[in-house]
Amino acid sequence: MTDAAAALAAITFNADGLVPAIAQQFDTGEVLMMAWMNRDAVAETLATGRVCYWSRSRKGLWRKGETSGQQQRLKEFLIDCDGDTILVKVDQDGVACHTGRRTCFYTAARPEGLTEVAPVLVSPEELYKK
Amino acid sequence: MTDAAAALAAITFNADGLVPAIAQQFDTGEVLMMAWMNRDAVAETLATGRVCYWSRSRKGLWRKGETSGQQQRLKEFLIDCDGDTILVKVDQDGVACHTGRRTCFYTAARPEGLTEVAPVLVSPEELYKK
Repeated sequence: MTDAAAALAAITFNADGLVPAIAQQFDTGEVLMMAWMNRDAVAETLATGRVCYWSRSRKGLWRKGETSGQQQRLKEFLIDCDGDTILVKVDQDGVACHTGRRTCFYTAARPEGLTEVAPVLVSPEELYKK
Repeated sequence: MTDAAAALAAITFNADGLVPAIAQQFDTGEVLMMAWMNRDAVAETLATGRVCYWSRSRKGLWRKGETSGQQQRLKEFLIDCDGDTILVKVDQDGVACHTGRRTCFYTAARPEGLTEVAPVLVSPEELYKK
């Protein structure tokens, strides 16, 4: 899809070799999640058009949707002014959150307390059944 | 505006005591910037309704717009499923980026190379004059 060399040269990775990547649904503008990419994840995302992160817990490339089927197809790859944050505009299949919600940002801090603002659309059991 | 205790209890700060915070224009959905908050920045943001970050370079609270006048009024404060990322929906005065662009995410990695996709609306000289 895109040659990654120019993008990699423009990105400042942190001491762990990672950069935060925000995923936004390209047409609705909904912010879906934030995760991390290393150089290989950036290169793979640009090469394949399927968003790939680095899993800090599993210490490996995390091809979003490889277990749940909820993939993210890349629409635009944006680098911020400091080169230290990525914004990927994506077309999200199904739900982005492992809880079965469309977005990971479903807990609002409001005067009345913490409030859930996004419904569960798919049960996690359904999502991760094989 | 909002009592911060519940929010602070739900947030996992990293080893440096910080959490990444994404700012999104509440009505258009535009992702404006990503910065960091510590506990005091979270508490101040919720108490005042003006978004406050932690400046890693200045090592101090960064009341967005204190120099440029381009403040962010808080509309919604969201915590993600893991408690380790914040999404603030804001009403941004003017431009979010120190380069005078509406958003910090103005560089797209495209097949033809890095491409600027957002115009300069205010010159940085104008923004930081006086």
